[in-house]
Amino acid sequence: MTATILPLKTQRPPSLEALIALVAADMNGVNAVILERMQSKVALIPELAGHLIAGGGKRMRPMLTLGSAALLGYPGTRHHKLAAAVEFIHTATLLHDDVVDGSGMRRGKRTANLIWGNPASELVGDFLFSRAFELRVEDGSLKVLRILSHASAVIAEGEVNQLTAQRQIETDEDQYLDIISAKTAALFAAACRVSPVVAEASEDAEFALECYGRNLGIAFQLSDDVIDYASDEATMGKGVGDDFRDGKMTLPVILSYARGSSDDRAFWRAAIGGERTSDSDLAHAIGLLRQTDALADTIERARHYSRRAIDGLAIFPPSKAKSALIEAAEFAVARAY
Amino acid sequence: MTATILPLKTQRPPSLEALIALVAADMNGVNAVILERMQSKVALIPELAGHLIAGGGKRMRPMLTLGSAALLGYPGTRHHKLAAAVEFIHTATLLHDDVVDGSGMRRGKRTANLIWGNPASELVGDFLFSRAFELRVEDGSLKVLRILSHASAVIAEGEVNQLTAQRQIETDEDQYLDIISAKTAALFAAACRVSPVVAEASEDAEFALECYGRNLGIAFQLSDDVIDYASDEATMGKGVGDDFRDGKMTLPVILSYARGSSDDRAFWRAAIGGERTSDSDLAHAIGLLRQTDALADTIERARHYSRRAIDGLAIFPPSKAKSALIEAAEFAVARAY
Repeated sequence: MTATILPLKTQRPPSLEALIALVAADMNGVNAVILERMQSKVALIPELAGHLIAGGGKRMRPMLTLGSAALLGYPGTRHHKLAAAVEFIHTATLLHDDVVDGSGMRRGKRTANLIWGNPASELVGDFLFSRAFELRVEDGSLKVLRILSHASAVIAEGEVNQLTAQRQIETDEDQYLDIISAKTAALFAAACRVSPVVAEASEDAEFALECYGRNLGIAFQLSDDVIDYASDEATMGKGVGDDFRDGKMTLPVILSYARGSSDDRAFWRAAIGGERTSDSDLAHAIGLLRQTDALADTIERARHYSRRAIDGLAIFPPSKAKSALIEAAEFAVARAY
Repeated sequence: MTATILPLKTQRPPSLEALIALVAADMNGVNAVILERMQSKVALIPELAGHLIAGGGKRMRPMLTLGSAALLGYPGTRHHKLAAAVEFIHTATLLHDDVVDGSGMRRGKRTANLIWGNPASELVGDFLFSRAFELRVEDGSLKVLRILSHASAVIAEGEVNQLTAQRQIETDEDQYLDIISAKTAALFAAACRVSPVVAEASEDAEFALECYGRNLGIAFQLSDDVIDYASDEATMGKGVGDDFRDGKMTLPVILSYARGSSDDRAFWRAAIGGERTSDSDLAHAIGLLRQTDALADTIERARHYSRRAIDGLAIFPPSKAKSALIEAAEFAVARAY
């Protein structure tokens, strides 16, 4: 009998590196589809779309489609178009979000609406939504179409729901979970679920990957909420305090408001109402979030969803792909501290 | 031999009445789908969407889907969902257009963006786009999906193209035809073309109805362009001079600019550039349009497309439905004078 030499587990923090390496070859295929399908004879379209799409971002959602396919040993390339469609839906949502929020910075760059104006961002967003439809239709599977178009409708509904909750201090944790389940987690779930359909895997595999994606999406959103109050612009490529200045109710604020003194609650009410937006107000807000453990506990909530995401993968045997997906779920939490 | 008594042709102007009567029963089915599918647990969605959808409008595009199906003697109801999808696409486009143009009045009512704000209009538009896609997917025909999602992408491209032409006095007639072919005629064409697919009619029938719809769409858009300079607000439910104040290049302006003196051209350049927006500027503009025959000739151009639409129907034998569709094409021109 020969002893199996197990490599020592290094203590490096969880990262996306394993997942990125796992899907690198497929991602080239996805990027080719993305570049080809954002073209148009109307020059403004590739110019504006390219600013956001070519300009980076983690390609988290396409990575999940590719990672899920790798988990199932799917050898084809049908999922490249679907991963590109998912990225187009996401990009269109970002373009529209930045218009709605009047944001000025995203991923460390000026936003498209700031450079080309709101109308251009809005209409190019519509174009990308439509292209995403076309890509799905080209795939030809009605099941895939159903999954992705349902996700689109749920996202749009979640966006409107978030808009109605904006500046509403009464938003509670349940309501907020409803919003992010729709607005963020639905696309993560759909991105994961299309792969078992394409790979003709079992329904159990579909449900398992949908569960993984949905919970991972919530974990990512909650850690994003923390990062918006806890990071510095240089490292995150996003303005700290964007959510604060937009009067967005996120979980840290919900927890801090629920746990605060009546003075604290008055502060939050004013801040979310748009009457406290200075840097010193933001510093005060971060102080309150720390005092009430709201940031730490939001990370704990994120960890809960990350664990559920990982448990969702239980039915799959160990593999490099499974390890990479598990590490991505750990990263979803670890990035916030 | 008995003599066939032909009813005397009345001299009333062409109207949509015959088409409306032809499709009335089916339209109830379409309206039921529309009302059901614009619902959401997020109350703002049916509220805002209902303002525009329930609030009237001719339902021109769904009428064309239903009229085309009637022409083919299609006995089923599959096209109800598709007609609703077409209306949702159109409504989403209107919501986004009003945001882009900053419009305040539509169909004689205050616009949704004025009442609920731009973000709400934008996001509810996204929701309707997504719902339209779900409705198409439910139908289950990939051919229908291809037709409607291609139309969506073409419309979005046309909208961006129009945005880049906005306030550009150099826009010429060819370029303008490209824009309205994409922005308006593509959805008219798709609305007509889905019916022969659903009715399993011949490819010839598909091409014929697509040709009818496309040319009809151009005729409608050109007469709309005339109406914007020629009607009064009370009768049209639309602010006269909206296009003028938005600096929109439409065919009347293109013709008048091409034919004008150098003073006239200087006026148009300033007006389209946004430096002449008063009521007296509008009156001066209308004067120039009349002097250069730009309004009358735009109507002539519309008549050309209306005739091509009618010729598109040549392959179909005479029927009540065919007469109604022909009269709709005549109405598309007659409404402008």
